[in-house]
Amino acid sequence: MALARGYAATDASKPLEPFTFERREPREDDVVISIKYSGICHSDIHQARNEWGNSAFPMVPGHEIAGIVTAVGSKVSKFKVGDRVGVGCFVDSCTTCASRDVDLEQYMPGLVGTYNSVEADGKTPTQGGYSDFIVVKEGYVLSIPENLPFEATAPLLCAGITLYSPLRNWGAGPGKKVAVVGMGGLGHMGVKLAHAMGADVTVLSQTLSKKEDGLKLGADHYYATGDAETFKTLAGTFDLILCTVSAEIDWNAYLGLLKVDGTLVLLGIPEKPVPVHAFSLVPSRRSIAGSMIGSIKETQEMLDFCGEHNIVSEIELIRMDQVNEAYERVIKSDVRYRFVIDMATL
Amino acid sequence: MALARGYAATDASKPLEPFTFERREPREDDVVISIKYSGICHSDIHQARNEWGNSAFPMVPGHEIAGIVTAVGSKVSKFKVGDRVGVGCFVDSCTTCASRDVDLEQYMPGLVGTYNSVEADGKTPTQGGYSDFIVVKEGYVLSIPENLPFEATAPLLCAGITLYSPLRNWGAGPGKKVAVVGMGGLGHMGVKLAHAMGADVTVLSQTLSKKEDGLKLGADHYYATGDAETFKTLAGTFDLILCTVSAEIDWNAYLGLLKVDGTLVLLGIPEKPVPVHAFSLVPSRRSIAGSMIGSIKETQEMLDFCGEHNIVSEIELIRMDQVNEAYERVIKSDVRYRFVIDMATL
Repeated sequence: MALARGYAATDASKPLEPFTFERREPREDDVVISIKYSGICHSDIHQARNEWGNSAFPMVPGHEIAGIVTAVGSKVSKFKVGDRVGVGCFVDSCTTCASRDVDLEQYMPGLVGTYNSVEADGKTPTQGGYSDFIVVKEGYVLSIPENLPFEATAPLLCAGITLYSPLRNWGAGPGKKVAVVGMGGLGHMGVKLAHAMGADVTVLSQTLSKKEDGLKLGADHYYATGDAETFKTLAGTFDLILCTVSAEIDWNAYLGLLKVDGTLVLLGIPEKPVPVHAFSLVPSRRSIAGSMIGSIKETQEMLDFCGEHNIVSEIELIRMDQVNEAYERVIKSDVRYRFVIDMATL
Repeated sequence: MALARGYAATDASKPLEPFTFERREPREDDVVISIKYSGICHSDIHQARNEWGNSAFPMVPGHEIAGIVTAVGSKVSKFKVGDRVGVGCFVDSCTTCASRDVDLEQYMPGLVGTYNSVEADGKTPTQGGYSDFIVVKEGYVLSIPENLPFEATAPLLCAGITLYSPLRNWGAGPGKKVAVVGMGGLGHMGVKLAHAMGADVTVLSQTLSKKEDGLKLGADHYYATGDAETFKTLAGTFDLILCTVSAEIDWNAYLGLLKVDGTLVLLGIPEKPVPVHAFSLVPSRRSIAGSMIGSIKETQEMLDFCGEHNIVSEIELIRMDQVNEAYERVIKSDVRYRFVIDMATL
């Protein structure tokens, strides 16, 4: 065991505070990573505050991790000391079932979250990226392309793959019209990635306040959903709509913006069920689907794609002791577009 | 103009009664068809009773038509007098837009329904299959394979294609687990077609009352949805679920029966919106979709497939004057499995 330092929520109602905890001794297939940057995802806040009702405390959040390899186990072959690596939302998964063949382990039981989860032994709690180092099995460590600015790669590990996977799965590319609902931490990555894939990209945001940013990041069009005309103008337009907002919105209205055979993909989970009218689906063979992060293989593919296209997240770099203030700003959507903690300030 | 005889609803509140009306003189691209058999679809009842609020009277229902060609226009090349042909849910469509290239005209504006619609001139009402003959443009007439019992082919034109199209679109075949919800006029066709495509077929019906029939028609498994255990036993089982019931059921419960990447396809339209929880979709990349009949090209493909596999509908042949009684029995689901009117009794 080795002592790690970090910031933890000790209780759902308290701010995060400095915390010391144990990490396991590296095994033969483990990689030890000195964490340099850690992104703040909205789901960190949901879990730190037990808003999903499944939180275990004390909890060190963080699943957008960028760091440098400081040691490797005897059987590790893909990484060496000094490598730039990333860790995303999970650090282990079921390897006995068929999921690994089809690279969909993120959807299978047996997934071990990077934090607020327990290891495969069924008891050891996992702790996340708001800390100085982490020990992760080689198979769950990603390579970060050398050409990308390091601090801005951290959010690719969650926000990036959350958008990349559905864009690939539903065939975004040249000749396809893709809309991204919400221009936040997830949405702005969707704009960059869909644009790089060659799709015609539209942002659907409540207001036009971020229009200039959206167009600069790669959007071809930008519409305000607060304007009812938008839903008339864009009726039947899109092959794919990626919905990054968890607020309760009228899915039927957005389904009306799809072409025949179009798909609305939910990336967030609103608290309550949303009424869907079959009439929004049947007469145009539309679909409403969900998608959640991506497999390890696809996450590496996404990072390589970002390397080729020079894509990173737009970030605000903060000190570790600003994390609680940052949480409040995330809740108010007051961030352009992702907070990243500089772990040197821990 | 030529006088046709049939049965019509003259008002939403009245039973169907004998009715005489005009059919157009055949044009150069028209086929004149002596109607031999006409299936009764639940949507005939919805429209005859104005339950969708879009009915025009007097209305001759019927869009499951099997008949014999009695005359063809000078430019008709695909059909000749004496041919066994069918007419389904539409008799014209928009030909200027891209839809015809991709054979999805059933989803496009400009579709002219076989009845309760108006011709491309925007004013002449169309009248359906509960009549002695019909005049239809060549492009909307289907060939019925010679080997199939004629009277039982009529329901293929709506019930058959309504199931065939989604089975094909979502890849039903060997190695795929397909569930059919509802064992009625639509559902029993789904069982036959999915079985012939090589899928592993499960019927999900309220009770086990039709289990023997279901297994005989090609189902591999049969479960009662009235039994809560069914939803536990079958969790995560299916690649594709075709929902043929329009009653309000809990879609979330059925979504739980899908594998990762599985799709629930709605074929009926419940009156009210149904609450869908994103949690039923996101953590397993599931979809909920809709599908509506099929294109003319796909309908012919379906009829040819049925010819190859000797598939027809299970029917109860009735006289024309039994139509109102048959409507009452359809509403009570008291039919195994489709009523077909013998038009010789008109």
